[in-house]
Amino acid sequence: MEFLKRAILEKGKVLPGNVLKVGSFLNNQLDVKLLSQMADAIYEYFYNKGITKIMTVEASGIAIAVLVAERFGVSAVFAKKSKTANVDGDIYAADCFSYTHKVMNRLILAKEYLNADDKVLVVDDFLANGQAVYALKDIVEQSGATLSGVAIAIEKGFQGAGDKLRGEGVDLFSLAIVDSMDDCQIKFR
Amino acid sequence: MEFLKRAILEKGKVLPGNVLKVGSFLNNQLDVKLLSQMADAIYEYFYNKGITKIMTVEASGIAIAVLVAERFGVSAVFAKKSKTANVDGDIYAADCFSYTHKVMNRLILAKEYLNADDKVLVVDDFLANGQAVYALKDIVEQSGATLSGVAIAIEKGFQGAGDKLRGEGVDLFSLAIVDSMDDCQIKFR
Repeated sequence: MEFLKRAILEKGKVLPGNVLKVGSFLNNQLDVKLLSQMADAIYEYFYNKGITKIMTVEASGIAIAVLVAERFGVSAVFAKKSKTANVDGDIYAADCFSYTHKVMNRLILAKEYLNADDKVLVVDDFLANGQAVYALKDIVEQSGATLSGVAIAIEKGFQGAGDKLRGEGVDLFSLAIVDSMDDCQIKFR
Repeated sequence: MEFLKRAILEKGKVLPGNVLKVGSFLNNQLDVKLLSQMADAIYEYFYNKGITKIMTVEASGIAIAVLVAERFGVSAVFAKKSKTANVDGDIYAADCFSYTHKVMNRLILAKEYLNADDKVLVVDDFLANGQAVYALKDIVEQSGATLSGVAIAIEKGFQGAGDKLRGEGVDLFSLAIVDSMDDCQIKFR
C-alpha cells in the first residue's frame, strides 16, 4: 500500500536492534486519515469472507481494529495483556513473549466475546516474530471459531513469521512488508 | 444519549464497589455501531471548536478516540501507562491513581505529539474519580496547548469529578451520566 510505504519512509525511524519506530503515525500518535485508508484496503481484501468479528490485542492494535470493524459493521474484541497466571474458567488465555519489552505476557479474552460460529479477522499493527498473532490464533482455536484471516499494517518480512503463517495456510494480508532494514535503509518486498 | 443509556441498562452489569461493567460493548468487546453513533454525537457537540487533536489514554479510550478523530479529520494521541518513574526530557508525565486496579500509574506522552498551538479534545470511556482526565489535563497544560473540551462516554455523576470539572470551567460533554447505582438500579441524571 503506497500511502503506508511513503509514511514509513518519511516518518519512520530505524533504531538499533531492528526496531522500526512508527509512533508518529501508527501506534502512539494515530494518523487517522492514513489508518482509515488502511482499514479500507483491509475491508476490500476480506469483504466477501463473511467476517463476524475483528480481534486484536491491546493497546496499539485497537485503533486499526476499530476502523476495520466499522467498515465490516461487526464488533471488535481485544485480548488484554495480563502478567498474572490466574485465569478462571470463563477466560481464554495464551502466552506470548514480547521481544520489544522482553517480557512474557498472557493474553486473555473473556469467553463470552467469542463464539464457535464466529468468523474472525485478526488485525494488528505489526507482525515480527508472530508471537501475538499465534497467541490470538490459539485463542480463536480454543473457542472453536474460524480464523478467516489476518490483516497486518507492517510485516517485518525478514523475521519470518509472515511466511511461516502463509505456509500454514493462513490468509495473511500485510499492507507493507519490510524485507530489510540494514544500514537504516528500509527495503520493501 | 438514548442509544447508550439503553445499552447500559440492557447489557451493563453493576458489580460490588460501584463498578459498572460494560465490557460487552464499550471497553473490551467494542460495539462499533454504537461507538460510531457516540463519535457522531461528540463531533456534533464540539465541531465548531477548532479541535486539532484528540487525546486519550490507553487502552480502552483508544477505540472511541480514533472514531472521534476520524470525524474531526485530525490525529489522535494516547498517553501510555508506565510504572517506571524514569522519564526523560522528551516526555510529558502526570501521575494518576487507578481505583479499579488500586495502582498508581504514570501517564506519559512524547513531547513531539503535542504542540502549544494544539486545541485538544480529551476523550475517554469513563469519568469516575477524574484521575485520568486530570492527568491528561495536566499534560495538555505542560505542553502549552489549549484544552478545548472533554468528551466522556459514561460519567459516574455520583463520584463528583464531572461536576468539579464543570465548576472549573471545563467544557465537559458526557453521553450518559449515571447518578446512582444503589441496589444495582442504574439511575441516569
